[in-house]
Amino acid sequence: MNLKDRYLNTRKLTESICSHLQTEDYVVQPVVDVSPPKWHLGHTTWFFETFILKPYFMGYQEYNSEFNYVFNSYYETVGNRVIRTDRGNLSRPTVADIYRYREYVDEAMLNFLCEEPSADIKELLVLGFNHEEQHQELLLTDIKYILGHNPLFPAYNKNHPAHKIEETTTGFVTMPEGIYEIGFEGNGFCFDNELNRHKVYLNNYEISANLVSTAEYLEFIEADGYHDFRYWHAEGWDWVKNNKVEAPLYWHLIDGEWHHYTYAGLQPLKLNEPVCHISYFEACAYAAWKGMRLPTEFEWEAAADKFNWGSRWEWTESAYLPYPGFTKAAGAIGEYNGKFMVNQMVLRGASEVTSPGHSRKTYRNFFQTNLRWQFTGIRLAK
Amino acid sequence: MNLKDRYLNTRKLTESICSHLQTEDYVVQPVVDVSPPKWHLGHTTWFFETFILKPYFMGYQEYNSEFNYVFNSYYETVGNRVIRTDRGNLSRPTVADIYRYREYVDEAMLNFLCEEPSADIKELLVLGFNHEEQHQELLLTDIKYILGHNPLFPAYNKNHPAHKIEETTTGFVTMPEGIYEIGFEGNGFCFDNELNRHKVYLNNYEISANLVSTAEYLEFIEADGYHDFRYWHAEGWDWVKNNKVEAPLYWHLIDGEWHHYTYAGLQPLKLNEPVCHISYFEACAYAAWKGMRLPTEFEWEAAADKFNWGSRWEWTESAYLPYPGFTKAAGAIGEYNGKFMVNQMVLRGASEVTSPGHSRKTYRNFFQTNLRWQFTGIRLAK
Amino acid sequence: MNLKDRYLNTRKLTESICSHLQTEDYVVQPVVDVSPPKWHLGHTTWFFETFILKPYFMGYQEYNSEFNYVFNSYYETVGNRVIRTDRGNLSRPTVADIYRYREYVDEAMLNFLCEEPSADIKELLVLGFNHEEQHQELLLTDIKYILGHNPLFPAYNKNHPAHKIEETTTGFVTMPEGIYEIGFEGNGFCFDNELNRHKVYLNNYEISANLVSTAEYLEFIEADGYHDFRYWHAEGWDWVKNNKVEAPLYWHLIDGEWHHYTYAGLQPLKLNEPVCHISYFEACAYAAWKGMRLPTEFEWEAAADKFNWGSRWEWTESAYLPYPGFTKAAGAIGEYNGKFMVNQMVLRGASEVTSPGHSRKTYRNFFQTNLRWQFTGIRLAK
Amino acid sequence: MNLKDRYLNTRKLTESICSHLQTEDYVVQPVVDVSPPKWHLGHTTWFFETFILKPYFMGYQEYNSEFNYVFNSYYETVGNRVIRTDRGNLSRPTVADIYRYREYVDEAMLNFLCEEPSADIKELLVLGFNHEEQHQELLLTDIKYILGHNPLFPAYNKNHPAHKIEETTTGFVTMPEGIYEIGFEGNGFCFDNELNRHKVYLNNYEISANLVSTAEYLEFIEADGYHDFRYWHAEGWDWVKNNKVEAPLYWHLIDGEWHHYTYAGLQPLKLNEPVCHISYFEACAYAAWKGMRLPTEFEWEAAADKFNWGSRWEWTESAYLPYPGFTKAAGAIGEYNGKFMVNQMVLRGASEVTSPGHSRKTYRNFFQTNLRWQFTGIRLAK
Repeated sequence: MNLKDRYLNTRKLTESICSHLQTEDYVVQPVVDVSPPKWHLGHTTWFFETFILKPYFMGYQEYNSEFNYVFNSYYETVGNRVIRTDRGNLSRPTVADIYRYREYVDEAMLNFLCEEPSADIKELLVLGFNHEEQHQELLLTDIKYILGHNPLFPAYNKNHPAHKIEETTTGFVTMPEGIYEIGFEGNGFCFDNELNRHKVYLNNYEISANLVSTAEYLEFIEADGYHDFRYWHAEGWDWVKNNKVEAPLYWHLIDGEWHHYTYAGLQPLKLNEPVCHISYFEACAYAAWKGMRLPTEFEWEAAADKFNWGSRWEWTESAYLPYPGFTKAAGAIGEYNGKFMVNQMVLRGASEVTSPGHSRKTYRNFFQTNLRWQFTGIRLAK
Repeated sequence: MNLKDRYLNTRKLTESICSHLQTEDYVVQPVVDVSPPKWHLGHTTWFFETFILKPYFMGYQEYNSEFNYVFNSYYETVGNRVIRTDRGNLSRPTVADIYRYREYVDEAMLNFLCEEPSADIKELLVLGFNHEEQHQELLLTDIKYILGHNPLFPAYNKNHPAHKIEETTTGFVTMPEGIYEIGFEGNGFCFDNELNRHKVYLNNYEISANLVSTAEYLEFIEADGYHDFRYWHAEGWDWVKNNKVEAPLYWHLIDGEWHHYTYAGLQPLKLNEPVCHISYFEACAYAAWKGMRLPTEFEWEAAADKFNWGSRWEWTESAYLPYPGFTKAAGAIGEYNGKFMVNQMVLRGASEVTSPGHSRKTYRNFFQTNLRWQFTGIRLAK
Repeated sequence: MNLKDRYLNTRKLTESICSHLQTEDYVVQPVVDVSPPKWHLGHTTWFFETFILKPYFMGYQEYNSEFNYVFNSYYETVGNRVIRTDRGNLSRPTVADIYRYREYVDEAMLNFLCEEPSADIKELLVLGFNHEEQHQELLLTDIKYILGHNPLFPAYNKNHPAHKIEETTTGFVTMPEGIYEIGFEGNGFCFDNELNRHKVYLNNYEISANLVSTAEYLEFIEADGYHDFRYWHAEGWDWVKNNKVEAPLYWHLIDGEWHHYTYAGLQPLKLNEPVCHISYFEACAYAAWKGMRLPTEFEWEAAADKFNWGSRWEWTESAYLPYPGFTKAAGAIGEYNGKFMVNQMVLRGASEVTSPGHSRKTYRNFFQTNLRWQFTGIRLAK
Repeated sequence: MNLKDRYLNTRKLTESICSHLQTEDYVVQPVVDVSPPKWHLGHTTWFFETFILKPYFMGYQEYNSEFNYVFNSYYETVGNRVIRTDRGNLSRPTVADIYRYREYVDEAMLNFLCEEPSADIKELLVLGFNHEEQHQELLLTDIKYILGHNPLFPAYNKNHPAHKIEETTTGFVTMPEGIYEIGFEGNGFCFDNELNRHKVYLNNYEISANLVSTAEYLEFIEADGYHDFRYWHAEGWDWVKNNKVEAPLYWHLIDGEWHHYTYAGLQPLKLNEPVCHISYFEACAYAAWKGMRLPTEFEWEAAADKFNWGSRWEWTESAYLPYPGFTKAAGAIGEYNGKFMVNQMVLRGASEVTSPGHSRKTYRNFFQTNLRWQFTGIRLAK
């Protein structure tokens, strides 16, 4: 696909995700980890404006210099920014303003792409596409949070198709002890955190061919797993007690029947689906209760060709840390990944709301141990 | 004016206040004391539905039973409610939904008012009108906060007329020692907190004919009043330091010139206007710096016929407490005032955004000592 | 009594209060409102050193200049101070160090008092005595908190005499409408907040001859008063729910029997004692449940000769505010009372741990509405 | 050494550490991570009583059943416990009480050890010795915090010997790519977190033969490293700004000269000492500024025989996670390590206050990324 088409497709997909929203849905930020959809629309646009158009498109006229302040996410290099907790306090720029901003930048980008850009700029463009794809997924997870925490439980889309469940194979994949190569190689795009490819030594291990299902997780709940400290990290146990956690996010016990909020509204749990929207603490506690553990990210990657993955981000027992030889790019782009490499855990796989083609088996996603608003699940190892 | 007209006028004024808003402006809640405009629109409607239509209009069909949860403000008697800090997290019901709710209730109310209601119901109606007038003022002050704390400083209405300044008389009104009657009397409407009319004994006192002006308050700032603990309550001093307060709310020092945010956008300070948007702590500190004090609410009321008032709510040195013989109504209506009679101070007067005819010289407004988003000013006494 | 004897008696009483303590008891600060006993010992000494010896005793050598920082309570005029929440973090100066400091200052004071001081200094001395008497009461209430919140519930003094209960008269004192004089007059000592004496106009009222007893308060608990929002201020209701308050401070339900912690250890409740250790919120809720109210401080003072008082500080329905004509002294002494006149309520009377002769009928004590560690009780009015 | 002697030596060392303390020093807890010394004395005693005497010494009479509540640290299996933030609020049991408790338990233990215990019990005993050695180090670090945060800066011991500085070699040790064995092997004691010994694959790396010195770290400060976000993790940058961090813990700039608090009191910095009392965030920022990184715990262990270590705990770039095949013991002993394996980083080495013989090259210490009260330093790798 040429760059223009790739650009257009990426931008349109973002907007199509928002096509089900009411204006008001674009505005709110019910918790700090969720951003208002209009912010995502503006921020992804600001990214192309700031890193491509302003430095490289001669004569480009910035749309509105104040937007730098409003739509910068965390790039300290590029000036001040609205602090994250305040994003939901901003009624302006309006949704219509932001769509106008998108149009303006899109038009400039298409003009810019009339000439073949240099290799360096192409690299930045592809980073921009991948960046916007990440925000497409965040848009969907943030929208789910916004609507799923509204007391009226409005559907995002009443006809949202049910997630296709993978064929369930069973049992464990057995992997032999030895040296494995980990990390990205090849010509395609990858993030800096997937490099460098390097050797790791793994002991014998077994890794489940399947994700833990909702039915299996219900057994843990029914066995009172949320009230037995033995399965929990000390910090996880505090989290359970302080937040009175009793079930995955979006679960509601209504007249004795478990329901969960979905894009199509409140629905009865589907028992054969992979369990979803759980924290690292819950994933570990479940594994401990089963007498097993989570795989490391290396074990996961080494075995990834032997099982189906992609329906859920999977917590691993690996902290998010640099690979040997990891280096940050100079300037603002170098803030992309490295500065988050502390106190987060790696997730592997992809989820039903990951943009098509975005993930790969070397992809390293990462979140804090208490977060649940992503589509996060459990694969066991032993 | 007949009840139908009074009802319609009140309802229309509320909506006309919102006519300058973008949809997004209706949604956000930048601090806990501010409510989203759409919440005010729904809550005032819920008030008529809950206290008039549901109990007294035979055959009335509730619009949406879930709205009770969403639009109840603080009435514990009438069921659960969205906690105040969460109002700005709700994208639904949408603004259009709420206008439909208003229409539905208005139509029912007009039908209901085709017959002359009983005296009891009339009393409730008049309470509903006064309640909605209070929310009209809150709408305006909340809108100012929402737009005035947006980094783009959008105007509410570029042509918003400047506030007419009262003729400035000068000097102090002298009042003789003796017994004064305080509290409402007459046939018109008053809130329960203005009753009962009772005698108080006042010493000789003098009360300023004018409010403190912006120019006068600037002298306090320039004399470093915000950095001299001697003028402050201990609690006020903590508030100044913890919040790094250096000037009234909405003031911005831009290139060495003081500006303030107004409904028409950022503008240079007008030095002859009464100073506005200050806390009780600041009012007391200013008075102490001048070697004077604030009047009590009784001193204010006893002298209120002798000076112009109405351009600013005026902090008094009286805590908000019940008058002798105060009694609460039974049921939810009894929650209107009494339960707030602790740790708040009385303000007297009215402001430029108080609804016409809403206030009177016996009117008791009240806020916590640190709040500044209302149009609050200073009248000195000695 | 001559000044030397008065000085010595006051200082000795403070030390005798501490005679039951272990060294460790002098050190801790389990909540911010409680100060470590060793801090009280040092602070009262610092008061005489700072306000008498250093300015007025020629040739006086300061004991340790760093103590100014450690033992200043809230006097901003006299330099920096350890913030209140940190007092319990200081192991040094040790208890023995502080007793040496007391000895040193006492010796200097006795030398100083060999000559008759000027009237101004006498006034400061008497303020120092009254200041130390206030800290004697705080010492006792703070010690009760320290030991009463220790899981071992150690007695302060196993033989601590039970509080003598006042003769119970019954019924209400009726007071006629009219003008009453309020505030201190005479030659003795009073605090600045008791001045000036001034007239107030009171309606007819009745005020109970007795304090509410433990037995009466138990009826409120058993009638589920702590779970019925109708009796509570909105802020009080939040306080009850957030702190899960179910009974007065120091009460413990042990095997179905109510006990309370006393200076002699845990003991069964005495039903005929005045109820004690309740907040303003609880006092108001109880009164509302009885269909009555608390008296104002003026009603209390006007009737104070007609009932027994002194066994408990009594919450009034008066905010702590300046009397007409109130003025603060210049300098640090002026920080004694005025700067606390916001968001606190007045208590009248005295308690079983008030130092002998310290209180009087014009005395104005004051605390925040949520505090309970003082001996606070309820007198009803209607 | 026989078990009795080992027991006695361990117990005496603990008490000798406290021999420099005043009674008051045993009581306070200035921050949550620091425990009062008296708590350490009680808790180490409770450990032997709870895990040895009560289950295995026939006829043993528990000293005081309430001490279980007071001295349990975090073992959920063994009942309730005083929450960690409250340890400094307890004046009782007194220091003398706790020494009596130690005597009582010591006497029982010596009687118990008259007979040769079973292998299982021996294992528990050795765990108890190692446990008490860990608390000896914590005692010293907690005492430093308690005295070093007192405004009087009292010395722990005026004659405390200066820490002997290691001979400074220079340069980097070069390590070849390949498989290394990591984890404890042999017959001696190790903690469960050092098992199992397993293979890891390491790339070529270089690791500094020396720790970063105070002089070198000063260059980072002088180069404004604390004000340049580029060197910091995002979370570290927030930490720096929120806590206004400008230097290592215990450093004070006095009249333009850097000093630090030591066991002998405030002293000028020694430039040739390893820098100490820094957080993981600071260690990483320094390494980033030098264009290097921290070693992983595997790199450290693989090279540990090639450099001197032991003067400082050294932050590694490894999260504290289980080794392959890690299993927790059943019951309370299983709570020793596993439940802390989240959101902490591994430190290797030992410090000047680590008990003699306590550490080894496979030893895994661990702390949260913001903590600084331990003797923590930096070794660079590349």
